[in-house]
Formats: sequence, structure tokens, C-alpha cells
Amino acid sequence: MMITSRLEDFIEEDLGYNDISCTLVPDNPQKAVIFAKEKCVLAGTDIAKEILDYFGIQYEQHFNDGDFLGAGDIIYDLDGDAVSILRAERLTLNFLGHLSGIATLTRKCVDIIPKHSRTKIAATRKTTPGLRKYEKLAVIAGGGDPHRFNLSDSIIIKDNHRNIMGLKSAILEAQKRTSFTQKIEVEVESVDDALIAAKMNVDIIMLDNMSPEEIIDTISALQAEGLRERVIIEISGGISQDNLKDFVDIDADIISMGSLIHKSHWIDISLEIKK
Amino acid sequence: MMITSRLEDFIEEDLGYNDISCTLVPDNPQKAVIFAKEKCVLAGTDIAKEILDYFGIQYEQHFNDGDFLGAGDIIYDLDGDAVSILRAERLTLNFLGHLSGIATLTRKCVDIIPKHSRTKIAATRKTTPGLRKYEKLAVIAGGGDPHRFNLSDSIIIKDNHRNIMGLKSAILEAQKRTSFTQKIEVEVESVDDALIAAKMNVDIIMLDNMSPEEIIDTISALQAEGLRERVIIEISGGISQDNLKDFVDIDADIISMGSLIHKSHWIDISLEIKK
Amino acid sequence: MMITSRLEDFIEEDLGYNDISCTLVPDNPQKAVIFAKEKCVLAGTDIAKEILDYFGIQYEQHFNDGDFLGAGDIIYDLDGDAVSILRAERLTLNFLGHLSGIATLTRKCVDIIPKHSRTKIAATRKTTPGLRKYEKLAVIAGGGDPHRFNLSDSIIIKDNHRNIMGLKSAILEAQKRTSFTQKIEVEVESVDDALIAAKMNVDIIMLDNMSPEEIIDTISALQAEGLRERVIIEISGGISQDNLKDFVDIDADIISMGSLIHKSHWIDISLEIKK
Amino acid sequence: MMITSRLEDFIEEDLGYNDISCTLVPDNPQKAVIFAKEKCVLAGTDIAKEILDYFGIQYEQHFNDGDFLGAGDIIYDLDGDAVSILRAERLTLNFLGHLSGIATLTRKCVDIIPKHSRTKIAATRKTTPGLRKYEKLAVIAGGGDPHRFNLSDSIIIKDNHRNIMGLKSAILEAQKRTSFTQKIEVEVESVDDALIAAKMNVDIIMLDNMSPEEIIDTISALQAEGLRERVIIEISGGISQDNLKDFVDIDADIISMGSLIHKSHWIDISLEIKK
Amino acid sequence: MMITSRLEDFIEEDLGYNDISCTLVPDNPQKAVIFAKEKCVLAGTDIAKEILDYFGIQYEQHFNDGDFLGAGDIIYDLDGDAVSILRAERLTLNFLGHLSGIATLTRKCVDIIPKHSRTKIAATRKTTPGLRKYEKLAVIAGGGDPHRFNLSDSIIIKDNHRNIMGLKSAILEAQKRTSFTQKIEVEVESVDDALIAAKMNVDIIMLDNMSPEEIIDTISALQAEGLRERVIIEISGGISQDNLKDFVDIDADIISMGSLIHKSHWIDISLEIKK
Amino acid sequence: MMITSRLEDFIEEDLGYNDISCTLVPDNPQKAVIFAKEKCVLAGTDIAKEILDYFGIQYEQHFNDGDFLGAGDIIYDLDGDAVSILRAERLTLNFLGHLSGIATLTRKCVDIIPKHSRTKIAATRKTTPGLRKYEKLAVIAGGGDPHRFNLSDSIIIKDNHRNIMGLKSAILEAQKRTSFTQKIEVEVESVDDALIAAKMNVDIIMLDNMSPEEIIDTISALQAEGLRERVIIEISGGISQDNLKDFVDIDADIISMGSLIHKSHWIDISLEIKK
Repeated sequence: MMITSRLEDFIEEDLGYNDISCTLVPDNPQKAVIFAKEKCVLAGTDIAKEILDYFGIQYEQHFNDGDFLGAGDIIYDLDGDAVSILRAERLTLNFLGHLSGIATLTRKCVDIIPKHSRTKIAATRKTTPGLRKYEKLAVIAGGGDPHRFNLSDSIIIKDNHRNIMGLKSAILEAQKRTSFTQKIEVEVESVDDALIAAKMNVDIIMLDNMSPEEIIDTISALQAEGLRERVIIEISGGISQDNLKDFVDIDADIISMGSLIHKSHWIDISLEIKK
Repeated sequence: MMITSRLEDFIEEDLGYNDISCTLVPDNPQKAVIFAKEKCVLAGTDIAKEILDYFGIQYEQHFNDGDFLGAGDIIYDLDGDAVSILRAERLTLNFLGHLSGIATLTRKCVDIIPKHSRTKIAATRKTTPGLRKYEKLAVIAGGGDPHRFNLSDSIIIKDNHRNIMGLKSAILEAQKRTSFTQKIEVEVESVDDALIAAKMNVDIIMLDNMSPEEIIDTISALQAEGLRERVIIEISGGISQDNLKDFVDIDADIISMGSLIHKSHWIDISLEIKK
Repeated sequence: MMITSRLEDFIEEDLGYNDISCTLVPDNPQKAVIFAKEKCVLAGTDIAKEILDYFGIQYEQHFNDGDFLGAGDIIYDLDGDAVSILRAERLTLNFLGHLSGIATLTRKCVDIIPKHSRTKIAATRKTTPGLRKYEKLAVIAGGGDPHRFNLSDSIIIKDNHRNIMGLKSAILEAQKRTSFTQKIEVEVESVDDALIAAKMNVDIIMLDNMSPEEIIDTISALQAEGLRERVIIEISGGISQDNLKDFVDIDADIISMGSLIHKSHWIDISLEIKK
Repeated sequence: MMITSRLEDFIEEDLGYNDISCTLVPDNPQKAVIFAKEKCVLAGTDIAKEILDYFGIQYEQHFNDGDFLGAGDIIYDLDGDAVSILRAERLTLNFLGHLSGIATLTRKCVDIIPKHSRTKIAATRKTTPGLRKYEKLAVIAGGGDPHRFNLSDSIIIKDNHRNIMGLKSAILEAQKRTSFTQKIEVEVESVDDALIAAKMNVDIIMLDNMSPEEIIDTISALQAEGLRERVIIEISGGISQDNLKDFVDIDADIISMGSLIHKSHWIDISLEIKK
Repeated sequence: MMITSRLEDFIEEDLGYNDISCTLVPDNPQKAVIFAKEKCVLAGTDIAKEILDYFGIQYEQHFNDGDFLGAGDIIYDLDGDAVSILRAERLTLNFLGHLSGIATLTRKCVDIIPKHSRTKIAATRKTTPGLRKYEKLAVIAGGGDPHRFNLSDSIIIKDNHRNIMGLKSAILEAQKRTSFTQKIEVEVESVDDALIAAKMNVDIIMLDNMSPEEIIDTISALQAEGLRERVIIEISGGISQDNLKDFVDIDADIISMGSLIHKSHWIDISLEIKK
Repeated sequence: MMITSRLEDFIEEDLGYNDISCTLVPDNPQKAVIFAKEKCVLAGTDIAKEILDYFGIQYEQHFNDGDFLGAGDIIYDLDGDAVSILRAERLTLNFLGHLSGIATLTRKCVDIIPKHSRTKIAATRKTTPGLRKYEKLAVIAGGGDPHRFNLSDSIIIKDNHRNIMGLKSAILEAQKRTSFTQKIEVEVESVDDALIAAKMNVDIIMLDNMSPEEIIDTISALQAEGLRERVIIEISGGISQDNLKDFVDIDADIISMGSLIHKSHWIDISLEIKK
């Protein structure tokens, strides 16, 4: 179950007020399948099930979020009224296609990480407006870490904070105001700032837009001061599936990639009426 | 102006209830810029302006939807409270990045069409749930045609309709039920069906998943019967930027491509605080 | 099925927070009927069924939208808790009464059209705010055409457009911006403008506020130029059930009448508890 | 001021996502007027002002709710962007036309009441779903009484209550459960029930569906027992502008008429661009 | 049944987008109980049932709103999926605890009233924003009167009205504008104003912030003029459980107490998983 | 600024559709003050300002959230239309009174903590449905820690998790599924479980419903194993202002108290029209 107070908005967006297109057909019982037309990692079944439930369509679900699918694999066997199936089709496929695209790209990136590495792949706040919860769950389905959900979760001190108020005073202010349930993360662009942040006991240090060499230098500097294991090291900035391999042997804890979402392609998933 | 009853939902999604992250900084007047970090066609300025207005940020906008931007081009000069700028940042950039990605891909595809061709590039209903209106407008910004908005706009008789009730009775039923303000489109997969549809005076024929050769054959058959100019010919199915050139010399009216949206990448657009 | 994200708003409007009025009675199983107290054409059963479903009331429905009812005809046999029936009563009747009034007036107008005429009766955008989808469907139930749903469906160039920018440039601009899925309609008040519009290949010409004689003259002028059959002729402006007969022999394609809605009376439909 | 959380829903209903129709014109400053094309009593200016405010249109309002207008009277002088005026036009006119229709019919009925009579005209709960607050205010604008707003306001014991649980026990239960701030009304169909209700000290007795003679008899019976002045007498059921005169000399306190709303016609109100 | 269009908002507030906390456990069938940990009067079962229904949890309810519970009394036996029970837990308990707290305090106050007194305890408009309907129903569950629901129910002329426009003209204006279904209440702070209001035939007089002696004097003055039984006397202002006994022998009709809500404590109600 | 998409809902709850009560007075400019009638710590000014803004009331605010107020201290000087001030009055006061009550109680509890203690007072998820964000911010205003916002923030393994799946497997599962941005908290009821949790490197251990002695024993056991400083110790369960002093010398990190909200009383805050 997922919380979908917006389900009817999504449906209305696609149906409008008088969907002649769907109601052309006689409203008889109909069988259909939803299947993948290409290899992928599945995501979006929670919202897909809600849509099918909404339209009163019976279904058998053969795979779960996170499962690997081959071309032709049937995700759902459907049994419902013809009109309802036509109405549910596009919205269900749009969710499954978009979200499985994110899960699949995430999984590809996760699989680039060497077996025994502690490095994990994570998303960012670069998500499609209105769909963050779905997209973060798709990242999880692909084996990634969702990262913080919004600006009120864990605190991140970013370049714009530093520019406005300076790093140390930003950290002090954050520590004064953060709940004990929250972690504090600091985005740094230099070794010096990384050392300052680690010494001030922040939980996470994000090395932003650094080259692999700069990252290695920074981690070495932290190790030299015995600070490496006291913080979680996140690296970020312009990392995508293409250049990810340059960053996987650096022993960072986290590689966060907006590209999991903003460079993902939809998976081709289709619905077919059984004749 | 655009209708955005959902603006506060988008904002709440990103801010949560207590955005320490933004309110760390002293709430002083601040200047900033939003700029493109790569070449692109701009889209999303309507919703961007609404977000900036919502947060009380003054702005000067240097480009409009549809304009070509080079790397480094400044889209907005901003002048507002530091806290408000930090709050508006991510949501504004997510919209601009996502929508400019769609506009840019659309424009690339449009530019593949030869100069004097009548062929146009169009979107489909494969849009991100909740964002259809924004994405259709981004396609327009890129020089494309938005196609129908939802199932209650123009009528499309699709394969699933044919499978359930047969082509002719589907067309007859559609003609009986469609408003005089609406066009009727028929998706066909064979020359015979194309001829039937054209003879029955439908407005648009979509040649679905045909190879270039099959399309040429079908159009020839229509011409032979003097039906070509009575219908709008749309071709669709698996066409993307990569294989588009195979379809541009066929003299179709419309090439519709779900890939304008589902294979688009976000454009890298950034906000920088002026020190 | 119809999309009714607003169902609970409608219910709350009528019930308030503590409907002592309904909960006075012991909450026992109860039978009841909903019946027409006067002749009418039925409309509104989709939303009526949703309301009954919402309150968990079992029903048998004896007529469908568009059916002719005589005084006393039972539309629904109901079986549910007494409290639920009292709660559902007014809202269900308000919808059925209002919408059947529109369907009935539409049908009366449709029946004024001679048997073999191609002329059809259509609604306009003069609909009760918030209820457009229900009212357009009621017009369809009465045998009418719903006309475009909103300003983003087909394009209509109206007097105010002409006044601001001139007819030709308005048409050219519309043709440049309209999707291939949309029709363009032009509202004209003179023969000359009708000829201009037809020559520019618009889809629909609306002859606005013309007398029958003026309409006949305009159609003749179009015929003389061989343009009549290339356009749909819609006539509009101040036409109601009373003067409709003056317009039915003119061979227009469409007579659009705001009065289908704004001069309709509710049908007297009632709910009676079975003792 | 009025509470209009639904304003954007109303606007979206009429505009859709891409109103080419309105945006054809250059977005220049424009003047326009809204005026009545027929005699009427004005209503709906509160919501009209909100719509104009929403679109940033400056206005001068020359009449208020409840004022009498002659054909041609200008209600608003408008000054705004051309696009905004076209966007605001239909929704504003739909509200003003519908609500002024109700106010005008109410005023006509009120004026049928003799000068020195204490009888007042009131609405019922037969209102258009979603628009009750606007319609009740239009009845007030026409000089009528809005009656209770919903089922949680004052309590009315109706025929269906009597049928289910008997009159006396319904009244006793209501008195036990009603707040001291609420009045209790009882709908009766016989002299005996009227006497029972009056003796049990209800606040209002509604004589439902009685002929003028039956009403007079009932009032006489109440007078004979000295109960007439202890209760408010409301008469109701099938009363409209046509037969109202049969009921005005009976000395009832209230004549409630669903027909104020369900037999009202819209007033013809128009917007004209100034050239 | 209760109208709960906001149920999903409440749930989302507590769950967020990815409630690992609840989904840690295997989603097996589970039994649980909801029970009171202290003596109380129960309230909130309507909304509790809706929450349980929403999560698909079967329940047996052993007590109703208004029932007296001892420590340990089981309110609900639950039977559902473990995950659903964990998800429903906090929201259900928050409602039951908060609302039973109000019902319990109300009952304590009601029980301070002597047996044969006509005085009743009532709430005010000092309710928690967003929860008025639930809190008013909790007051009813505790044996209290809900008082008017909002500013559009019965009319109260308050000190600020008197200060702005004077008492008499405020009453006259109210009488001119109030529906026959509504009562008029006047808040007074002096004997003179009470006499004025009673002579002008208002329905309810609220003696605001008067000491017991002042109240007795005012009631005597009304009795001396034969006006006491023509009005409902409400006393209000700073009355809480602690000083209530000073006011119970004064023979007022109503003692209204904002403190029923704003000094109530939540009742400790708990959910326990059965091992 | 705060995100308040629900502002209009709150206003409509209090105003209804036709607030004669407020509109009795002539709508003239008016001055007024909002002031505290008792000592308190202020909270709720963010939402108060939004309400005043909504009604177009000018204000000068003399105190901020978290400030100490004495009886009589003026919080706002208001300047607006009389009708708007009356409309804004109750909702503004209900928020300020309720939230300042929470801030004041929180501050009292915080002040019981000895000066140099590291112990902090925190809220829980026992918050009034729909108002969590406001109440958590009020706790912050009172000097408390808001604790996690909802079930998707930091993870808490509670008794019901242990009962269903055992402590160790619950922790392992949580560690597998939690984002690197989140903390894991474990609720324990015994020394053994505390040691298990600490050894498994959880971030926070909540000692639930333990007596001061049991808490001291548990902390000693953790110290003995060198684990004390590796975890945050939170104590919880039945702690309120009355017994708080028994827990303040134990050197816990956090004392969390549902009673900050569920035993808070509203502060008496009032609005007075200036004559």
C-alpha cells in the first residue's frame, strides 16, 4: 500500500470528461496482459496495483519491484471490463515505464560497483516535480539509496550556504538547530573545508564536483588526521553511468547521482488485449 | 500565466515542514542568477515565474520558451531574500531542467526534418503522470506538435479497439458519438485497414509500427485511390532521434514520438548566489 | 464510471458536520424508490450511482441516461440503511433533477429538427461553474452535441479576437499554433468574413447572431464559391426552444444553444421511503 | 470577500492546459465592459471580483448585489491585459448570469407578496451541487431568505422521518439531540400533525404540499388553540412564480420555493472589448 | 459514517513516503487490541473506524462514543496485516486520545451540574484548527452541547460588534439579515444591555465574563420584567472545571466553556500487538 | 514563511458561507490589538501572519516565536477593515493560544533541566492530527527538540516490532533498508536489549517506560562496556512536567514527552478592537 491522495488527479489528467476513446467498445469482460518489451528492473508496482484496484480490474502479479525482467516477461495478467482496462492502460504503463527506467539505470550503476566495495549509489533531490516519492522508491528498487527526501530531513550545508555565511558558522548554526534524529551533511570543494567539517563532527561530507584525484587527496588527508572513519564520505557532481567507473575504486561511502533520474529512459512496457 | 493549483504541493514536496537547510542563512537581500550549463532550447519559464512570484523573488528574464541558449547564458537575474532564493532553487531548476530537456530533444528531432517538408514532429500520451500539461508545452517550445491532450480530446481508434470490436464498427461507432468539434484518428497496421479508414472519411490515419517501406506502400495505395490528401497521415511506433532520419523523406504529415519525453535528458541548469 | 474526485465535497456541502436530521431515525435496513414525477429524458445516472455506492446503498437501476420516462416511472429501487438513504437523498435528487432537466430540454430541441435534416443541436461553454462535465454529458443524453469542452480543445476565433487583431491575422496565427488534432472555428458576423474564413480553410464557421435570412444569404454565398461543403456551418446566438423552428430549415450543420443549460428547468424527481 | 478555495478549479475547467483561443491575441493593455443585456437583479459580484483579481484585471464596479439593472447597464469597467480579459470572460459571465437569474426570479416572487404582509420567500436545499453558497447568497440578493444551509444547521423532521419512526418520537429525539443554538422544524401534511408539533414546542412548522384551503384550515386550527404565534409557519411544495399568488394572502411566515433556483433562467450578461 | 475527505492527508502526515518503520516486519496476519489505560469517556470511534477501514483491518468495537471506560477496557479487537496495524496505530490513538480527553473533561463538568438543574454545558468556537467537527462531536459524546459550528450558523453579537456599532443597531441589523432558521444571540456585560436585548426579542443572551453575583442580578432584573423565560441565558468567560461549581446554582440555561477543549488532556489509549 | 495550502480550509471551517456575524458591522478601517492575557512563551506567529496577510490586515509584530511574554503584552498592532479583523480573529487566536500553550509547557520543562546538563527535551509523534508541523515548531519555539517528523524520517524499532520479529533481526533489517542519511533508533525495555542495540551500532537507544533506577542501571551497563558515548540515550514513557525532575539528573541525552502536547493548555490570548 502506498498513500495516493492524488490518484484521481492522475486519472483525470489522462481521461478527461468523456473518454469516447475507451467507451467505444462494448463493456464486456476482457483478459489482457502487461508485459515488458525489453530487459529491465521492475519498479512502480505499488501505484500500478492501486490504479488497477481503482478500476476494479482483477490481476495476478508475477514480479515485484526490484526483480529482473527479460523481454516478453508478463508482469500482470488482467481480468476486467474492457472499458476499465482501456482506461487504466496508459496511466499504468506511464508509471511502470518511467519508474522501471529509473530502477534499471540505478541497477546498472550499482552493478558497476566492485563486489566487496562499501560504496553505495544514491539519488539526489533532482526529481520530477510531484513524483519524488515514486522516483525515490524506484531508486530503492534498483538497489540504490534514496538520500534525504526533502529539505526538512537531514541538513545539507551547500555552496550557497558557505557563500552567504561561511562554513564554520553554517555548521555551528546547523548543529544548534538540528534535531538529535537528524544527520548533518556538509558539501565541500576543498581539502581544507573537508578537514574543518570532519573536525566539527558532521555526519556526512559531500565532496562536490571533485576529480577522482582530488577526492583521493581529500580522503587521504582525512585519514592522516584519523577522521576518515568518523564521517560518511559522499561524492557527487556530474557523475553518470558513463564516467561512474572512474569513481568506484576511491572507497567513498556514497556516490550520489542526479542522473539516475534525469538521464533515465523509460522502459518499453505494453498492454495487450487477449483476443 | 498558467493554472497551477498544485504549486503549493510541489513546494511542500521539496521543503517539508521545517527546512533548516534554507533557514540557516541570515535572511538578507541577495542577488543570484539562473543559467544554463549546456546548450539547450529553453522551456518551463511559465511555471518558473510562478515559483519565483510565490516566493516574492524579483527577476529579470532574458530568454523565453523556445529560445536557443548557449552554455553560460543567464536565464534569470534574481533579487530576493536569501532564504526565499534557497527555497525556490531546487523546484525551479527541476522544472527548467526537465522541461528544457524535452524542448531540446524535440528541437533536435524537428531539425532533422528537411527544410521544405510538410512533416511535423508530435508528442504522444506517454507523459510523466501529473506533468502532462507542462511536458506538452515543452514539446511546443521545441517546435513540436502536442498531439491530443487526453482521451476526451480527439478520438483515436487503437489496436485494442480493433481487437475487441473490429475496425469498421469501431469507426462507425466513433462517428456516431464524436462531437463535430473533434477529429477521429484511426491506428492501422496494414494497407487494407488504411484504405478502409480513408474511405470512411476519418480525419487522421496513424500508421503504427510500420517500416519505412510499409509506410511508403500504404501512402502509395492511398494516392492510387485519390485518398492521400483527404487524410492526415501520422506515423508512430518506436521512432526516436536515432532512427528518425529513416522516416523523414516519406512525406507523412506527422511523426509522433513518445521518445521526445521518455528518452529526454534533463538540461543542466544551475543557480548561483552572487557573492 | 466517471471521475469524481469532488464527490466528498458535494456530500459535505449538503451534510455538514453533524447531520442530526438524518441520524434521528434508527439505522435499520430500509427500502426506497427514486422516481420521476413528470415526463422527462433521464440524465445523471453515473454520478447518482457513485453517490449510492459511496453510501453503501444497494440499487437496481431501471433506466439509463437518454431514456424517456413517464410520470411515476421508478428509476431506482434502493435497499440500504435508513440513515444512509436519508443522507444520499438530496444530493442524488439534485443531480438527477438538474441534469435530466438539461437532457429533457435538449431532446425537445432535437425533436424540432426535421427527420432527414443533417442539422444537429449543440451546447456551448455557458455551463454552471464546476459542473461542465456533468452538463455536457446531459446534453449528450438528450441527443445533443457537447461542443468543445474548454478553451484548450478546438480553437474558436471570436468577435473579441477580431476586434483586437483582425480576422485574417487571427486565422493565420491560429493555424500556426493549432495541433493537427484540433479543429479551428471562426465566428463571423458578415458574408465577407464567412468567405474569407472558408477560403482560408478553417474547419467550422459560426454565423453569430444572424437572422435566418442573413444565414441563408451567407450559405448561398459560400455555395456560389463552392465552399459550403468544405466547412461545417454552425449558427448561434439567442436561439432557444421558442425560436428554434425559425432556424431548422436553413441546412446548417450545427445549431448551438446556450439555452439548453441556462433556460433548462429541473425535472421533479423524488425519493420515497417504502413503509 | 468570500472563501473561494475552488477558484482555480473553476478556472481550470474553462481554460484547460493551453488556451490558444485566448493567447492568439497580442497581450496588450485592453479596456472592456461587462454589461447586462436585459433587466435583472444583480448577484455574483463577490465571486466576479475574485476572478478579476485573480487575473490581475483592474475594475470599477458600478452596481452591487441586489441592485436593479436595466438593459445596457454597465456593471464593470475593465482594464487589463487582453489575454487575461479573454480568460476571465466566460467564467465571470457564467457566474453573473446564473446567479443574477436566481436573484431576479427571487425578487419577482418577493414583489408578488403584498406590501404589509409578514410573509417571506425562502430557498430550499434544492441547489446545484457545488454552488450552494453562491446560490443562497443570490437568493439573499433577490430579497429572499436562504433557509438552512445544510443538514447540520437547523433540524427538519421530514416525511421520511415520520414514515420511519413516527412524528412524536422524531420530535422528542430531535429535542434531545439539538443544540440550544438550533431551531427544530417539522414538516407536516395534516392538521393533526401540525397541532402535535406546535404543542411540543417546535420552532417552525412546514405545511408540505397543502392546498391554500388546507393551509388556511391548519392555521385556523392552530389559532383556535392559541398556538399560531408560538410557531413560524412555513409553506412549501410545488410553489413557483406562476401559482405563488394563490399563497400570498394566507399569512404564512415563510413560503419556501425550490423553484427560485430550479426554474430560474440565466440573465444575459455580456463582455465587450472596447475597440 | 462521517465525511472525511481529509483522511489521506492525516495518514500522509504520519507516514511520509517510505515508512520503513512499519514495513520492517513481515506482513503477516496479526491480532491486536486498542485499550484505555485510564478511566475515561470514549470519543472518536467514527474516525477511528474509518482509519481501520482504510487500512483493511477487521475490528470488533466493544464501546461507543459516550461510554464510560475503566483502565484496561478493550475498545477494539483488531485483526489485520501487521504492517497495516502499525501504520494505523498512531493516527488512531492520536484521535482517540485527544477526543476522549475532551469527552472526559466535558463529562466531568456535566456531572458537576446538580441533578434537576436545567443548566447545560456547551463548547465554544475555541477549537483546534482543522478539527472542529471532531471536537464538537467529542463534546456531544461527553454530554455537552456543541454550540454553533461557525460564524454562519446562529448569529452572535459580540463585544467587538457593540464597540464598533452600538448594541441596538447591531441587533436591528442582525434581525434584518438573519434567516428565520437561525437564532440571534447577544453577548452583554451589563444588566442594562441584557434588558435591551431581551426586550428586542433576541433568542439567547450571553452574560460574558460576569461574576456569579452579577449574573444573579442580571437574571433577577430579567425576571422582574417578565423576560427571563423568553430568552435562553448563556454564561461564559473564564469558566473551567475548577470554578464551575460557583456557577451551577444560578439557573442559567447554558454554561459555555472553551476550556472543555483548551484545557483538556489526552486520555492514555494504547495499542498492543498480541504475541 | 510557511507552506499553508490548507489555510483556506481553516478559514472556511470557522466562517462558513455567510458570516452575518462579521458583516453586521460597517466595513470601516479599524485598529485593534492582539495581546497575551497571561505569561507565556509565544508560538504560532508564522501562521498568524499568513492569516492576517490573507485578510489584508496590516500589522506590526512586537514579539517572535520563542519570546517570553507577560500578561498584557501586545503581540500585534492591527490595522485593517473591521469585517476582516472580525473574520481573522478566532482562527488567529486559536492558533496562537494552542501553539503558545505548547511552547510554554515545553519551556517550563526545559527550564527544569539543570544548567550544564546535556539533556534535552523532545516531542513525540503524539500530535494533534493535521497540526503536526505547527506543533513541532511550537516545541522548537519552547526550546525543545521536535524529534522525527513522521514514520519515514529516522527509523524507530518499537516494542511491536520486537514482539513481531525479534530485536536483532529487526535491527539487521532496518540497517539493510535505511538510507545513509537516516538514523536508527531502538526502543528497549531491558538492559540486555540496550546492550544488544548498542553493540549493533544503532544511533539512538530509547529506554522506554523505565524507572529512574532502571535507566541508571542501563546507562551504567553501557558505560561498563564502553558503549555509552557511542549512542544517544533517549528516555521516554509517562514523563510529564510533574515527574520530570526525577529524570533530569540521569544524564540521558534526550527526554521525550508526548505530554508537551497532550497535556498542554491553551494560553489566553485575546483581540481587542480599539474604540
